[in-house]
Amino acid sequence: MSLAPSDTLNQRHHQVREALAQESADALLVTSIPNVAYLSNFDGSSAIVVLTPSRLAFITDSRYVTSIEQTVGTASECPGLELVRVKGAYDPTLVSVVTELKPKRLAFEAAHLTVGRYQWLLKALSNEAQGLELHPTTGLVEGVRVVKDDYELGVLREAGRRLSRAAECVFSDVRAGVTERELALSIDIRIREAGFDRTAFETIVASGPNAALPHARPTERKLDEGDLVVLDFGGVYHSYCVDLTRTVAVGPASPRSREVHAAVLAAHDRAVAAVAPGRSRFAIDQAARDRLAEAGMAEAFGHGTGHGLGLEVHEDPRIARQGPEVDGSREFVTAGMVFTIEPGAYFPGWGGVRIEDDVAVTDGGVELLTDVTTELVEL
Amino acid sequence: MSLAPSDTLNQRHHQVREALAQESADALLVTSIPNVAYLSNFDGSSAIVVLTPSRLAFITDSRYVTSIEQTVGTASECPGLELVRVKGAYDPTLVSVVTELKPKRLAFEAAHLTVGRYQWLLKALSNEAQGLELHPTTGLVEGVRVVKDDYELGVLREAGRRLSRAAECVFSDVRAGVTERELALSIDIRIREAGFDRTAFETIVASGPNAALPHARPTERKLDEGDLVVLDFGGVYHSYCVDLTRTVAVGPASPRSREVHAAVLAAHDRAVAAVAPGRSRFAIDQAARDRLAEAGMAEAFGHGTGHGLGLEVHEDPRIARQGPEVDGSREFVTAGMVFTIEPGAYFPGWGGVRIEDDVAVTDGGVELLTDVTTELVEL
Repeated sequence: MSLAPSDTLNQRHHQVREALAQESADALLVTSIPNVAYLSNFDGSSAIVVLTPSRLAFITDSRYVTSIEQTVGTASECPGLELVRVKGAYDPTLVSVVTELKPKRLAFEAAHLTVGRYQWLLKALSNEAQGLELHPTTGLVEGVRVVKDDYELGVLREAGRRLSRAAECVFSDVRAGVTERELALSIDIRIREAGFDRTAFETIVASGPNAALPHARPTERKLDEGDLVVLDFGGVYHSYCVDLTRTVAVGPASPRSREVHAAVLAAHDRAVAAVAPGRSRFAIDQAARDRLAEAGMAEAFGHGTGHGLGLEVHEDPRIARQGPEVDGSREFVTAGMVFTIEPGAYFPGWGGVRIEDDVAVTDGGVELLTDVTTELVEL
Repeated sequence: MSLAPSDTLNQRHHQVREALAQESADALLVTSIPNVAYLSNFDGSSAIVVLTPSRLAFITDSRYVTSIEQTVGTASECPGLELVRVKGAYDPTLVSVVTELKPKRLAFEAAHLTVGRYQWLLKALSNEAQGLELHPTTGLVEGVRVVKDDYELGVLREAGRRLSRAAECVFSDVRAGVTERELALSIDIRIREAGFDRTAFETIVASGPNAALPHARPTERKLDEGDLVVLDFGGVYHSYCVDLTRTVAVGPASPRSREVHAAVLAAHDRAVAAVAPGRSRFAIDQAARDRLAEAGMAEAFGHGTGHGLGLEVHEDPRIARQGPEVDGSREFVTAGMVFTIEPGAYFPGWGGVRIEDDVAVTDGGVELLTDVTTELVEL
């Protein structure tokens, strides 16, 4: 298991502490598990971090103590980590940690704390830590995570390479007569054999008319000659997610299939070409959308063009239409951001096409992390 | 895909409406996806339900509209479902639905609504629906879900049978020289081949000293002669989760391995025998704990004895020690509850043993849903 080096963690702590200072808060309660992982190299499923300008309290239970202790003294140890072992339940332990740290203004992650837990903490802290203010924040750690550091880019590059090789193997599993579920299982095996810890989401195999549903689940339908089949799959490699879609034909593709595939591919290529530092994420989305509109397929493309990749399979930046609500996250992409480009066109009753690659924004423009033919493959 | 019949959904609505009346509220905002699924047969990942004494508004986006529409007119359609299609973002659509339904007191799920979303809703609703009160509740739907109906018991029984057959196949994959990761992949394939949609969690294969970690992740360690190996895996069958653990020996087991296995098995059997309607969930846990204490292994058993199974792999009832905090959920088990019994004993540096079955509480006592030998198998 590859882990971020200590100096990278140090840099992340520094950036989050700067964001915390901007909020005029002197401690941050981190309850999002991907955010905890980002700050500490933790790979379990339950832990809390409380970060102050000078300290990092790390709360976990007996199941995960060994895993974090094993990093101590290594090149991947979390700088300044003070391990607190949960006895009983997490939140009473958290209250005693906060009481000891004595912050005046404790920032918390409003998108990752439930109302029930918040109300419990508010009451417990008002008893134990009088004068303490709980301050809601959004995206303090995510705002740092959105720009990948060199360690992360290295992992994502390797993950993209491995997923691309797996995709080539997947092509050889596609044939008439196999069911969507059988093919999905073959894909999941290919992903694991390529060195991924697990699939990043439930693999999509959508054939013939089923491909009209962007989020179809694999069924018992057998692939048939002439079908287009959307294959959308991803893997988690050293905690980082990559995601790839190709649409292939079973046997010779029909003229209509070729036409839709060509339009989606052109939209994909336009969006990739639109990626560069300083570009608006809405403009990248629009590039794909405009190209499909030129082909008369504007209505057939209902979802966004892409989503960020990292410790989560869906994170910022969202490459999407600008909504009526301002969603707070930044509009312009910068070097180090990693996201998917995945336009599609869907026609109820007929089927659909989606083509997806993963890209990193570089100082010079764009780098493709996935590398598999985008031509319509007939199998 | 098997779905709950309409009259079963009707009965669920009725029970949740009764719980809602107890809270003196005239609408319930359901944001937990398993709870949405329970009330509507929805199998996607984004939707909101607003339930009133006479109506059920169902909010979802274009990705999932077809899937819910396909149930209309079938024996599994959701009674009274009024489909609202999201345009833009979910929460503004929710606000317009609530504004139209005009409840006085809108209950929400405090454990499934984040502070950020709550604050946004509070502000939006104070503009749009003056006089509306937002009322935090806990476990209204979960309190109904904890007792499985006949449809659910049928699915869980079939899932338990299938997982047991998969387990027998898994035994034939265990041999010296195979890595934990390779064996985990074999298990995941067996689970899918047994008809499960997916694994219920990341499969645990923990061999030799690694078995001392209850939540170990599979590593590159090769199984060795004399190892004990903890195999803990589960599957999702028609949306319902089952979960099974066996600890096997690679080649002949040592006397110490036999001793620990026998003690854990005795604890498992005692806990299973303690299951009956009206029993305290803490007492069932204590039955396992006492038996391990008799063997001098009290300290070696750090986790709870079991957890509920259903639409989630960890749900109520928790078969655990009574904590210092009253957790609000009921103490006594009743017919229709389904949970795991999974005591273990873990010795750092040496390894560990866990044995897990799934049980249903019946009017007469207990029914085992899983059925694989609990003897120490030497492979």
